[in-house]
Formats: sequence, C-alpha cells, structure tokens
Amino acid sequence: MVQFAAPRLDMTFAALSDATRRGVLEQLARAEASITELAERFHMTLTGMKKHVGVLERAGLVRTEKIGRVRTCRLGMLGLHEEAAWIGSYQRLWDTRFDALDAIVEELKARETNNVR
Amino acid sequence: MVQFAAPRLDMTFAALSDATRRGVLEQLARAEASITELAERFHMTLTGMKKHVGVLERAGLVRTEKIGRVRTCRLGMLGLHEEAAWIGSYQRLWDTRFDALDAIVEELKARETNNVR
Repeated sequence: MVQFAAPRLDMTFAALSDATRRGVLEQLARAEASITELAERFHMTLTGMKKHVGVLERAGLVRTEKIGRVRTCRLGMLGLHEEAAWIGSYQRLWDTRFDALDAIVEELKARETNNVR
Repeated sequence: MVQFAAPRLDMTFAALSDATRRGVLEQLARAEASITELAERFHMTLTGMKKHVGVLERAGLVRTEKIGRVRTCRLGMLGLHEEAAWIGSYQRLWDTRFDALDAIVEELKARETNNVR
C-alpha cells in the first residue's frame, strides 16, 4: 500500500468516529458557526460541543477563531484526501482478495460438475 | 448529505483510527493469518493483538474462526463502501465551500484593483 502518515490518519479517523462530529463537519461545510450555535443545533451542552470541536481542531478538520466572546468555527484546510486514498487503496486489495476467492469457488463448482457427469 | 448508518460508521472509523489495526487489514487483504502470526508480525503481545482483532471483528472488518487451538483471521465482507461514500460526500461539500471562498477572494481583489485605478 501507499505509505501514509500514521498519526495523522489515527487522529482524523478517530475524529470521524462520532456522528455528532461528522454532523458538525457537514454543518460547517455549509456555513461557519459559533460553538453556541453548534451546541444548540446538536442539542448539546456548550462543554460537550467544545470537546467535540477540540477533537476536530486537533485533527486539522476545523479551525476556530475567538473574536470577543464568540468562538467561530470554520472548516479546516484538510480535505480528507489521505483518508480517501487509504480507503481506496484498501478497497483495491479487498476486491482482489474477494475476486480470488470467487475464482476458487468457480473452480470448485466446475470440478464438481465434471465429477457428477 | 446522503443518510448513513451512524453507529456503523462510528465503529468502522474508530476501528480505522489505529495504525496497527490498519496494518492488520492490509495484511489480511494479502492472506489470512492466525492471531499468533499477527502478534509476531506487529511485535505485539497475544493479548494486545486479540484486543485489536476484537475491535476489527465487532466493526465487521474481520472474521475469525477457531479451529482447535488456532484462531484464524480473514477479511470481513465490509468493503468500506459507506465510509468511502461519506468521505466523498464531505469532499464535494468541502470543494464547494472553498470554491465559494475563492470566488469571494477574487471579487475582493477585483474591487481593490478597480479602487486603485
């Protein structure tokens, strides 16, 4: 497989392993939002949302900026390209593996048919 | 975005958030292996590898079968299609968002040039 930056992938996949955090990313892809707005939208306490945003920020998926009392969240510059590449690379291996198994099954079936005749 | 099965995605992305577990998947895509073989290959205790394989198995990414004393691990039937689809869907939103920002920047630049003239 292609070599990937392991700690980066660890952090991004972990950040994506929560439905709320995936929802926040989808939301911020539409428009920037304050932590308060995100907390309201996802029916969550401010503390809970701060934690989720922190995980996304450390993974590079979200940037935040505090102006006065409001912390605004925006999408980070990380377009999940390496993550998509890892999954794509795995899928090619997976397809090859199952194609090979299919070929074995077909061969066994063919042998069985020949034996029956 | 397309609707995805949230708990499934939570489990698979969490399973992918560890370099050893991603390595085990890459390894099993090449050939099945016992837990002992995997532990040796990844310089890990048997207990440690059992935990990793358990996470992958619960996420549907690996199947295991115990014959006698040996537990053999194979790739599960999950080809990470939903995970790839989620990331793809997010990337389209992300591209749109940054294209929109690009357009704003271009407009501001154009205005500035006009003001200077």
